[in-house]
Amino acid sequence: MTQARRQRGAFITLEGGEGAGKSTQARLLAEALRGRGLDVVATREPGGSTGAEDIRTLLVTGEPGRWDPMTEALLHYAARRDHCRRVIAPALVGGRWVVCDRFADSTMAYQGYGHQLGRETIRRLDALVLDGFKPDLTVILDLPVEQGLARAGGRGGAEDRYERMDVAFHERLREGFLEIARRDRQRCAVVSAEGTPEEVHAAILAAVAERLPLPDAAAPAGDGPA
Amino acid sequence: MTQARRQRGAFITLEGGEGAGKSTQARLLAEALRGRGLDVVATREPGGSTGAEDIRTLLVTGEPGRWDPMTEALLHYAARRDHCRRVIAPALVGGRWVVCDRFADSTMAYQGYGHQLGRETIRRLDALVLDGFKPDLTVILDLPVEQGLARAGGRGGAEDRYERMDVAFHERLREGFLEIARRDRQRCAVVSAEGTPEEVHAAILAAVAERLPLPDAAAPAGDGPA
Repeated sequence: MTQARRQRGAFITLEGGEGAGKSTQARLLAEALRGRGLDVVATREPGGSTGAEDIRTLLVTGEPGRWDPMTEALLHYAARRDHCRRVIAPALVGGRWVVCDRFADSTMAYQGYGHQLGRETIRRLDALVLDGFKPDLTVILDLPVEQGLARAGGRGGAEDRYERMDVAFHERLREGFLEIARRDRQRCAVVSAEGTPEEVHAAILAAVAERLPLPDAAAPAGDGPA
Repeated sequence: MTQARRQRGAFITLEGGEGAGKSTQARLLAEALRGRGLDVVATREPGGSTGAEDIRTLLVTGEPGRWDPMTEALLHYAARRDHCRRVIAPALVGGRWVVCDRFADSTMAYQGYGHQLGRETIRRLDALVLDGFKPDLTVILDLPVEQGLARAGGRGGAEDRYERMDVAFHERLREGFLEIARRDRQRCAVVSAEGTPEEVHAAILAAVAERLPLPDAAAPAGDGPA
């Protein structure tokens, strides 16, 4: 590095219900940021670190009723703690940007709103474990429930436990994400996921450019000689 | 059952540092209670239910520094939540007595005091997850640190990560357990673990008889005709 001290990187999370296209959009966003010369870590939750991936295995395997919502929330936060300590925080300190497919808002939406553990319970757990650590920007991909489930339904696979929940659950989930955005407008941007992947990507990139010091596409930043 | 409604059973936990003889004493206590005609579930933490045993595997395998203390505390409480819901609470409601080798006081002592996460952090986590659920009686087996480590050292095996911690850790642990007992004298009985297993067992049984409605040894309770 030629710089005496690197600036802290930025932490961007993508959130939303089933079928909203988070994983695709997280990949497109990471690629676009790299195209601006940024050093980007693309990661996901649950998981993202060796220990957190082991906890993820407990969460996504077995019968859908294997864990009650509180146990699920604790496992998610155990994984998140490990992920933050070992991957996210070191990357940010090192000046890298982090794009994460799901983060704490997913626990609030799924366990807090969807499973109705309640906003205050998840808020207290979050405060205890993360001590105020938040993303710099959270993009919430919003989609009518029927569209999301129709898209997700085509996917199949073993990790579809939430897709099998009833429509009322998914309505609470969608409302939960929108409520999270209403309560924290400074951090959250709601982006419609109804368009093509290219359209959604452009809207996400616009939200990032509006809120974070995004280098110009034509003048990439780098480690080259000044 | 001949009774119209069973009385709730009693929940007894055994706590203490390494080498205090908890497992032996938990077994002897469960046998003695069965000898009084009680229906006893003998269990342990971390673990005690299928899901909790899976979480235990994450806790006791891998390198000693695999998890930071907060992640450890979250995994312990996730396992505890499952254990309580699936094993302990149903047993108590069914009128059975539960003897558990370690419970929530171990997280307070090991992560709260030993690893210095602090009393208040663990208290908040406990309140969130267990919502006031406590043992009816907790027996804390107390032993000078050097004696405990000398006894435990003979054991070997893969689950000795705490035995390899320094003496200062074990001193904080012992003080933690004694502080827990001082703060909740109604629930906790401190029993010296320095005697023979038979002597310690007799002291534990006396503590149980003093605080819980223990049936007479000569007149076992049962489900026979009244």
